[in-house]
Amino acid sequence: MVALKLLEKCGVVGVSSISKEGVAEHLYKALYSLQHRGQEAAGIAMLEGRDVRVYKGLGLVVNVLTSDVLSSFKGCVGIGHVRYSTTPGVTIEEAQPFVVKNPRFSFALAFNGTITNFLELREEMARRGMVFTTRTDTEVLAKLFAKNLLECGMDYVEAFKLTAAEIDGACSLVLVNDEGELYAYRDPLGFKPLCVGRVNDLVVIASETCALDVLAGLDDCEYGAVNPGELVRVCEGSVERVRIASSPRRARCMFEYVYFARPDSVFDGISVYRARERLGRELARRFPADADVVVPVPDSGRAAALGYSLESGIPFAEGLMKNRYVGRTFIMPSQELREEMTSLKLNVVRDVVEGKRIILVDDSIVRGTTMKRIVRLLRRGGAREVHVRVSCPPIISACYMGIDFPTKRELIARIMRLDELTKYVEADSLQYNDVDGLVTGIGLPKNELCLACLTGEYPLAKSYEFELLERELRKE
Amino acid sequence: MVALKLLEKCGVVGVSSISKEGVAEHLYKALYSLQHRGQEAAGIAMLEGRDVRVYKGLGLVVNVLTSDVLSSFKGCVGIGHVRYSTTPGVTIEEAQPFVVKNPRFSFALAFNGTITNFLELREEMARRGMVFTTRTDTEVLAKLFAKNLLECGMDYVEAFKLTAAEIDGACSLVLVNDEGELYAYRDPLGFKPLCVGRVNDLVVIASETCALDVLAGLDDCEYGAVNPGELVRVCEGSVERVRIASSPRRARCMFEYVYFARPDSVFDGISVYRARERLGRELARRFPADADVVVPVPDSGRAAALGYSLESGIPFAEGLMKNRYVGRTFIMPSQELREEMTSLKLNVVRDVVEGKRIILVDDSIVRGTTMKRIVRLLRRGGAREVHVRVSCPPIISACYMGIDFPTKRELIARIMRLDELTKYVEADSLQYNDVDGLVTGIGLPKNELCLACLTGEYPLAKSYEFELLERELRKE
Amino acid sequence: MVALKLLEKCGVVGVSSISKEGVAEHLYKALYSLQHRGQEAAGIAMLEGRDVRVYKGLGLVVNVLTSDVLSSFKGCVGIGHVRYSTTPGVTIEEAQPFVVKNPRFSFALAFNGTITNFLELREEMARRGMVFTTRTDTEVLAKLFAKNLLECGMDYVEAFKLTAAEIDGACSLVLVNDEGELYAYRDPLGFKPLCVGRVNDLVVIASETCALDVLAGLDDCEYGAVNPGELVRVCEGSVERVRIASSPRRARCMFEYVYFARPDSVFDGISVYRARERLGRELARRFPADADVVVPVPDSGRAAALGYSLESGIPFAEGLMKNRYVGRTFIMPSQELREEMTSLKLNVVRDVVEGKRIILVDDSIVRGTTMKRIVRLLRRGGAREVHVRVSCPPIISACYMGIDFPTKRELIARIMRLDELTKYVEADSLQYNDVDGLVTGIGLPKNELCLACLTGEYPLAKSYEFELLERELRKE
Amino acid sequence: MVALKLLEKCGVVGVSSISKEGVAEHLYKALYSLQHRGQEAAGIAMLEGRDVRVYKGLGLVVNVLTSDVLSSFKGCVGIGHVRYSTTPGVTIEEAQPFVVKNPRFSFALAFNGTITNFLELREEMARRGMVFTTRTDTEVLAKLFAKNLLECGMDYVEAFKLTAAEIDGACSLVLVNDEGELYAYRDPLGFKPLCVGRVNDLVVIASETCALDVLAGLDDCEYGAVNPGELVRVCEGSVERVRIASSPRRARCMFEYVYFARPDSVFDGISVYRARERLGRELARRFPADADVVVPVPDSGRAAALGYSLESGIPFAEGLMKNRYVGRTFIMPSQELREEMTSLKLNVVRDVVEGKRIILVDDSIVRGTTMKRIVRLLRRGGAREVHVRVSCPPIISACYMGIDFPTKRELIARIMRLDELTKYVEADSLQYNDVDGLVTGIGLPKNELCLACLTGEYPLAKSYEFELLERELRKE
Repeated sequence: MVALKLLEKCGVVGVSSISKEGVAEHLYKALYSLQHRGQEAAGIAMLEGRDVRVYKGLGLVVNVLTSDVLSSFKGCVGIGHVRYSTTPGVTIEEAQPFVVKNPRFSFALAFNGTITNFLELREEMARRGMVFTTRTDTEVLAKLFAKNLLECGMDYVEAFKLTAAEIDGACSLVLVNDEGELYAYRDPLGFKPLCVGRVNDLVVIASETCALDVLAGLDDCEYGAVNPGELVRVCEGSVERVRIASSPRRARCMFEYVYFARPDSVFDGISVYRARERLGRELARRFPADADVVVPVPDSGRAAALGYSLESGIPFAEGLMKNRYVGRTFIMPSQELREEMTSLKLNVVRDVVEGKRIILVDDSIVRGTTMKRIVRLLRRGGAREVHVRVSCPPIISACYMGIDFPTKRELIARIMRLDELTKYVEADSLQYNDVDGLVTGIGLPKNELCLACLTGEYPLAKSYEFELLERELRKE
Repeated sequence: MVALKLLEKCGVVGVSSISKEGVAEHLYKALYSLQHRGQEAAGIAMLEGRDVRVYKGLGLVVNVLTSDVLSSFKGCVGIGHVRYSTTPGVTIEEAQPFVVKNPRFSFALAFNGTITNFLELREEMARRGMVFTTRTDTEVLAKLFAKNLLECGMDYVEAFKLTAAEIDGACSLVLVNDEGELYAYRDPLGFKPLCVGRVNDLVVIASETCALDVLAGLDDCEYGAVNPGELVRVCEGSVERVRIASSPRRARCMFEYVYFARPDSVFDGISVYRARERLGRELARRFPADADVVVPVPDSGRAAALGYSLESGIPFAEGLMKNRYVGRTFIMPSQELREEMTSLKLNVVRDVVEGKRIILVDDSIVRGTTMKRIVRLLRRGGAREVHVRVSCPPIISACYMGIDFPTKRELIARIMRLDELTKYVEADSLQYNDVDGLVTGIGLPKNELCLACLTGEYPLAKSYEFELLERELRKE
Repeated sequence: MVALKLLEKCGVVGVSSISKEGVAEHLYKALYSLQHRGQEAAGIAMLEGRDVRVYKGLGLVVNVLTSDVLSSFKGCVGIGHVRYSTTPGVTIEEAQPFVVKNPRFSFALAFNGTITNFLELREEMARRGMVFTTRTDTEVLAKLFAKNLLECGMDYVEAFKLTAAEIDGACSLVLVNDEGELYAYRDPLGFKPLCVGRVNDLVVIASETCALDVLAGLDDCEYGAVNPGELVRVCEGSVERVRIASSPRRARCMFEYVYFARPDSVFDGISVYRARERLGRELARRFPADADVVVPVPDSGRAAALGYSLESGIPFAEGLMKNRYVGRTFIMPSQELREEMTSLKLNVVRDVVEGKRIILVDDSIVRGTTMKRIVRLLRRGGAREVHVRVSCPPIISACYMGIDFPTKRELIARIMRLDELTKYVEADSLQYNDVDGLVTGIGLPKNELCLACLTGEYPLAKSYEFELLERELRKE
Repeated sequence: MVALKLLEKCGVVGVSSISKEGVAEHLYKALYSLQHRGQEAAGIAMLEGRDVRVYKGLGLVVNVLTSDVLSSFKGCVGIGHVRYSTTPGVTIEEAQPFVVKNPRFSFALAFNGTITNFLELREEMARRGMVFTTRTDTEVLAKLFAKNLLECGMDYVEAFKLTAAEIDGACSLVLVNDEGELYAYRDPLGFKPLCVGRVNDLVVIASETCALDVLAGLDDCEYGAVNPGELVRVCEGSVERVRIASSPRRARCMFEYVYFARPDSVFDGISVYRARERLGRELARRFPADADVVVPVPDSGRAAALGYSLESGIPFAEGLMKNRYVGRTFIMPSQELREEMTSLKLNVVRDVVEGKRIILVDDSIVRGTTMKRIVRLLRRGGAREVHVRVSCPPIISACYMGIDFPTKRELIARIMRLDELTKYVEADSLQYNDVDGLVTGIGLPKNELCLACLTGEYPLAKSYEFELLERELRKE
């Protein structure tokens, strides 16, 4: 049975040096700044001499891209990838970049997203004689592109147009070829972020703007979005941008603003930090509570909690502390201890919560067990009342664009009414943001966002496989 | 030339199970919660069968105390240690606990502190035939104790009394012996913290109360300080406390409240979080500024910044973001890149700082280079004005009790006047807390604190070696 | 410029359990017994559930196939590979088995040999739309086979026939598919060995018979050669053998008998140990010397030295000792030290050589530097005369079938006449076996052996690339 | 209960450069050549600046003394140690060298042997106030020496005399101190080997002469024994030798000649290789057999088998092959597989043994299970008869001087008569050498050898602890 790849939450980067200096360390720094987008695997591909060379491994950027590895790369243009996966058995074959080495050309690509029709595409390509070595959409995308490249006489722009027309789904992609060109492409609905900018003599593509800030350090940098449907071509210092696909709407993943991106990033003109602060303000307007202090779940709920405090006038305080030394979970002794440690990474600041009525703010609730534990910690610390406020509305539907979603049994919002959940987590009150509050908070028009997991309304026709999966979910 | 050990900032823990259950995982959890007190080495020693067995290694708790190691320990009483060191060449021999295995007795001890007269003690012991295998004060302390133990007929309490009378300096110590007893001792001036408490059926000693909270999880726990000069003896479920040394004053290290301890710990009745918040309030009272937003240096300046915001009424916002994936620095490629990465772990949130007059709050300034970089980052992000406020008064003297201090050249407060420093870090204004503000903020009487590094007035006669070192410092 | 893959000296294995027991540990043991055929990489592929799963890594079998890895494989049919490479930068992508995962079928294959026309095949396949991810002949072979499989309606036997007709060169191959079938194929000239046999309820394919002996332990086993041009199909306990390719001659690599194979293996009816002993006897007959003792270069020259001793009546003695703890060379400090250590692994037994006239026997001379060092060692140990005798005639031409060959400058036999070489290695006399002696010693008809590297007469038309390479060699 | 340390089979080395060049790599090479004497741990100690610095770790020399470690040592005099242990839980604390760092002096020592009265010595020293951190005789020896050093006013030669007079047992020792002196001492009975020599400008002490040969490479070297009872002092290029202890007899461990040492070493004028060859000749004289071929158990039985063949005139052949790629056993998957692999490292050469009457020669039989398996392998390979001949007489008593001995149940010679054993291993005949044959073969007078494990007659009074242990053995 084929498993649909729904779990891709990754980071991509591409760097090209106009002055032909080595970019390996730049790729390293950029990937390191995108580490929050994926900790399972990391890899880079660079033009080395006249061939594209790739190196990838399982683990964190600092562990995979060691000093020895980096210093073996000399190229002045390349791409990189960090991979997220909830499946424990991720193998090196599934890591990116994916490299193609044909007799007369070679390239490597990496992407963040999900090609929703990759099974149909693979079937079709296999029927015409294509041979596959993995079961990933990444390989399908790379080979489809290679096929198109051959069919249009090695014209990369043309090949991108052909490919864009054939694939459905989320696709924020970077590609480097053996001619030293760097490309970036973002699907016309703009599901996942992708930005392009300049830092000194470097042209940089990245999933998030924070990567450009980090590369810039104290120097200036400028950046903007790779627009939905746009192809960017970087070659010999010139940056060409051309629209190769279009759509009547946008479908920016709302979860990037709510939880996934770094707060210091800016997506399509929206500051992620400010969006989260506004989500907190909307919560305060819609779901006020009589309380003494606003406490965030660190670090994810902090910006929203500050927004709630600013709007409500109730003072903000750090009533929960987080242990920073969590380390690679798999090196922790025993599964049990590992789980326990993960939950134990939070501790209460008694002096802040003792005798207080608390508004506890977090970005989302998925399984409910963590929230229940936090409420108990606060009560054990002496809190008089705990009012839970959540930036994100209830998640009730599956995502098919790259954000991890649990099975029905785990989607707490599908199995408990609000009053049941309030009781379950032992809160005095509990309120989710509503969809309007979310849209207002993010600050983009509703039809520019993908809200499918909140509303069940999908911006794209669902693929056959997704329908199947959803049916299974319904049966559970 | 012998180097004086001034750099010990460590964490200790001791656990004894009344119901004779294994305590290895409890030691692990407690050390993990004290990881911020030392990342260079970790170790545990437990009563195994009729002997005391030790295991220690270089690195983080999660890396040293692996599943295999933990499961090889079965004992129901033991101690643990995490070690801090600024010297890069820390060796396994210097890690703690230190074990003594004589024909008729064995014990292991671990401590946080500095025995200031250890060179004199070692000289004297060597003259009488004692043989040493390291150059540490830890070995001197352990062998002095063993000697006293033999001389007083194996009476541990008596041996502690003798030892306490002979040593000078800071000493928060735990000890486990082959009779299953657990001891804790804190020097009469109480330089470094040490607490004792109960979690379910465990008696727990730890450097900080957060370790007891973490062991308790959702269960109740109670704790209090091991009082200065007090010896605690835990045996067969009974906890005896006896004062074995006294002093007319206390000398609690002010830096524990300002920077070093976890904010969720409580020392001698003072909440660390609240102390830091009060330090911020004192700063706001003494050194106000006309500004739009209060921004902390994360994570160390957050509580003080919140205090400043509460007192001044100027809104608080997170204008700087910190990358959490720093990893073990030594696996990062190249020294240069390592340094760069450390500084690059901070990025600015442009939307928060752009066009704003900012009050930037941190706990202390040592070398000034980091602060200079942060001010520049804020300006690059569009800040109109940057007013630096620092919780801790200028550090002008060497510490000889276990907090790292740089050489004179690096002690920025000794080589620059305030106006020079303001200019150096490129701030619009810069103000340190004053000593009164510090004392008021912490909330303890002045004569209960050690302020030596701020005032040059030492609570103890200096040892000969320290005098020498200080003379060198003056010459620089 | 494309580098021709000339260096493949590998080991392959395939195991199928008739009683459907797991075969992972059997694959492990078999690969371990073939470790001498390649130490750079190891891998296995097994039918797991309904899919073919592969695991491979760089390093020795014991390091790659750890306990965790092995116990994650449950299948009852699979293949394995150990890879040899002189190129230091071998990457995981080039390791075998190579897996194909198309929508409707999957298989993995591993082979020992060289597809001499793989560049032409790749060119042709790429022209027809095939996409490649490496530059290896392994990928070309696997994708050619997949293409043929699709074209002949998923008939594996037919696909093997088509593939055999298209490829030139050496190919001893194993393949496992998602239907649980195991295949083995050997090219019609039989360049590289391949055997098939039965151990208890296992059907086993392996490069050498020693693998079957090791699997058998104290149990019985039977085996024979996979005949040149033969396809073996193992399925549900039945073993079918069918000739699918033929050739008027054989071209068994003489170097397998002389040096590469384990002495306890039997190839095509010839005992490798006995062949080497006979080579020593031929040497003694053709190139006698007046001496006191016959000394082997351990361990490669031992069997031939015993043969020389038996034929000449001159006593055999171990005058040189070898250090067994060489370890993975790459973990030895510094390149210089590494080289030095490699040479230092030999030491002289003074009592054996002192004052003696010595006949020193080795299997071959490639660069001459090692032999020179050994002769010097013997003289330093007191040897009066040293007469070098070499089982293998001078290597004067390039191999294109999988045995490593050095460039012209390093092929000592191409740059020095016998008298020059004798002087260079500082021997009293030096004699190579002649080609007739070699053929007689091995015990096979001359037209059943590949002697190309000794005679320059190639059993197959050379590929265009080989011609190029040879031309370069000539120019040097 | 205290376990008597009976298992020390170690290698030691000391190197001093007359021209004051760094000796770290020389120590590395020498230890590497002594690796067969211990694979559990390795360490070096060198004079660095004015202090003695030590580095040790668990594992092989190539794994412990990495490039980074070696290059951090700059000293021109130092010592090294490789440690053997049958106890699986060897800890780093028990590894050598052992370092002493007193205020006014420091030294490190390493030794091969067993201090049989170390428990009494420890008891006495503890009574006088000495504190111990391990339970090893190494620590007792080091601290006893330090005590003596202090008592005799820092005169090293005098301290050696005092120490030599107090210790019983086997002791081949090297020591380096903070004055740059290198010492070597061997106990007056000369249980374990120790040699001294010169290689270029280096003075070298080593357990075996092969270490000096390896350091010399193609250069000349000269060496001789450190005589029993002799102290060697190396300082500023001068080598002084002084007898500081004496004994009416010698007690050279016969097992060094039979099995443990490298064949290319020379002990006290006896070539180990020649001794083994003579042992084979004695076997042939005393226990002839009518057979076709003499086959060694590789590699340990080879020299004796050659001797048997020379004496009997029956041809020698390699009928068993050994897999060289055994690797670190502890990284092999599963205990079972590990054991199986160890036994599977031998395979039969069918062509050599088929239809033959075989004389199988090995150095010793301890448990009998391995020999039984080998005989079965030979029979499975077609051997008609198998006549086992063993160089070493039956081991019937415990060793207390550093050679591993099994418990009574495992000492096959104590639980089976010769006829029973012959039947057990399924041989046609089986003969051990007799004690006279052993003595004649080795070539030293009987009263210069320690034959205790063969005869039960101990050259030294047994310690109380040994008596206890022996009594337990008898009871079994």
